[in-house]
Amino acid sequence: MKIALDAMGGDYAPMEIVAGAVSAARSLDCELVLVGDEEKIYSELYKFSDWKNLNISVHHASEVIEMGEHPAAAVRKKKDSSLVVATQLVKKGECDAVISAGSTGAAVSAALLILGRIKGIARPTIATPIPVGSNLTLLMDSGANVDSKPLHLVQSAMMGSLYSQYVFGVEKPRVGLLNIGEEATKGNEQVLNTYPLLESTTTVNFCGNAEGRDIVNGRFDVVVCDGFVGNVVLKFAEGLAKTLVKLMKQTMKNSGIMAKIGALLLAPTFRKFAKQIDYTEYGGAPLLGVDGCCIIAHGSSNAVAIKSAIGVACEYVKKDVNAHIRENILQEEMLSNDKDK
Amino acid sequence: MKIALDAMGGDYAPMEIVAGAVSAARSLDCELVLVGDEEKIYSELYKFSDWKNLNISVHHASEVIEMGEHPAAAVRKKKDSSLVVATQLVKKGECDAVISAGSTGAAVSAALLILGRIKGIARPTIATPIPVGSNLTLLMDSGANVDSKPLHLVQSAMMGSLYSQYVFGVEKPRVGLLNIGEEATKGNEQVLNTYPLLESTTTVNFCGNAEGRDIVNGRFDVVVCDGFVGNVVLKFAEGLAKTLVKLMKQTMKNSGIMAKIGALLLAPTFRKFAKQIDYTEYGGAPLLGVDGCCIIAHGSSNAVAIKSAIGVACEYVKKDVNAHIRENILQEEMLSNDKDK
Repeated sequence: MKIALDAMGGDYAPMEIVAGAVSAARSLDCELVLVGDEEKIYSELYKFSDWKNLNISVHHASEVIEMGEHPAAAVRKKKDSSLVVATQLVKKGECDAVISAGSTGAAVSAALLILGRIKGIARPTIATPIPVGSNLTLLMDSGANVDSKPLHLVQSAMMGSLYSQYVFGVEKPRVGLLNIGEEATKGNEQVLNTYPLLESTTTVNFCGNAEGRDIVNGRFDVVVCDGFVGNVVLKFAEGLAKTLVKLMKQTMKNSGIMAKIGALLLAPTFRKFAKQIDYTEYGGAPLLGVDGCCIIAHGSSNAVAIKSAIGVACEYVKKDVNAHIRENILQEEMLSNDKDK
Repeated sequence: MKIALDAMGGDYAPMEIVAGAVSAARSLDCELVLVGDEEKIYSELYKFSDWKNLNISVHHASEVIEMGEHPAAAVRKKKDSSLVVATQLVKKGECDAVISAGSTGAAVSAALLILGRIKGIARPTIATPIPVGSNLTLLMDSGANVDSKPLHLVQSAMMGSLYSQYVFGVEKPRVGLLNIGEEATKGNEQVLNTYPLLESTTTVNFCGNAEGRDIVNGRFDVVVCDGFVGNVVLKFAEGLAKTLVKLMKQTMKNSGIMAKIGALLLAPTFRKFAKQIDYTEYGGAPLLGVDGCCIIAHGSSNAVAIKSAIGVACEYVKKDVNAHIRENILQEEMLSNDKDK
């Protein structure tokens, strides 16, 4: 198995991308191709004395897509960017998967424009794993699409369910539709029209409506929503975490010596606690529905997150998630029903 | 000033509602009417030796609207329910405001059916204050409406801005439109069509798009969104808080004696920290746009939260928020523009 890494994408690229690749190459059974400015990549690689014994190679690419750029335009224009070149390696069959921690929009655009969609899938969606303690819920979609049609949400549910089953080993994933109440009669037009479709789908274990709280309480393995809502929720969670940490630090600063001793004594417990909600342990969100494997890593990914993303890519390819999606493509009749609406 | 309290609504009603009323009557300059089962209310009141010296009266109502009931149907059917009777007291001019910690849907329905809307306001919206440290952001709407039209969001922005200005004393509230990116070209159809309207509105200090993280980082005083999104975000935050507390307790349980001593030493700091994100200090979310004052308290409100909600109602009435809304009703031309679409 061969995985292409966009070595220039991410807040800590290429340093953490290279470090993650080295760490993965030491323990995982896969070949890694670091794509990007070779000079910069080699200067990072040389920090690891054993790198030449590892299954790592470098593929030069002269350009970088920056965070602020218009995704599709940048992908079209920067043909020699690390992201485009890495995605091309998958298209040409030289690699089995591509991973990027750069602009999510650009990674989605590159996948759509270069790899294309699996036949029958209307809109690929980003499946973000939300780990809280022993619960792991897959949030679909976290921002690839907005104004999704009911069919898109149903296909999203199907793909998320297969991913949860084959990659996370959940036997019969419980799928929920994100809504503002549990009753089937609640919600906006989008979810009201999606509910009966999900109910009648035999390929998905639909367990009814999920509410905001159900994203983190373990009631569902897969929660399906419009990318607008998923994106807002994820960014809200990130913002909340940052703001609370800042607030806690300020409060600590104004506390006495006893509190500071208390904090020291509690530090190992805090670390154990933090590990249970640490996304870097899950590291990558696949773009489900594209004809190839594309894993999107968080922009602030460190080496641990990159290594996890590589692990995710390995599982994705090994379990052949796309073959399962092809087998389960939701019926053409649904597509035509949708068109009639 | 006279405020009607739905004494039977809420997870801890009537106990905490009555206790909150007593506490408010001791310190705030207002008259309180407890509406509901008089026997139950009196038995709570008698727990407070000074209640007869306070500005509190009881108004009997024989029915209660339960959480599971269909809001509008329940309001229509249970004419002698504590919520309906309390709202009627405002309609008749006997009270200036109504507060309920019962079913949010029922409170909204009662307000719409009994009080009606302020002329020109298409859809009243719930303004939920989100306190994080020294930041206080008003999230509009948290679930009164779904599939809102651009005009509804613009009116929501205007009302939230006035509320922030007159009740929270923010001179020129910074208003943001909740979206999945900062750029004006991002988002779904709803926000793409709302953005230019907000930009051209002179009554609102529109500061551009807000992202999920901006609900808690203090960048905006008012964040406007569809009730579907707002509801999901609020319930997600609640679920996250509950799940994290549970997880922390489990982690603590499995920790050694040193960690437990640490926790004891840190307890006062934790309490200080928790107070900074404690919604009970803000206690009530007004339903802006109805012709009267209706404050919705959280279902799990305790006496502190109820007292805060009463404080909110007092400020609302004292500052005559509705008069300011009437003055600033967004132009009829916008209404007709919207109809043409």
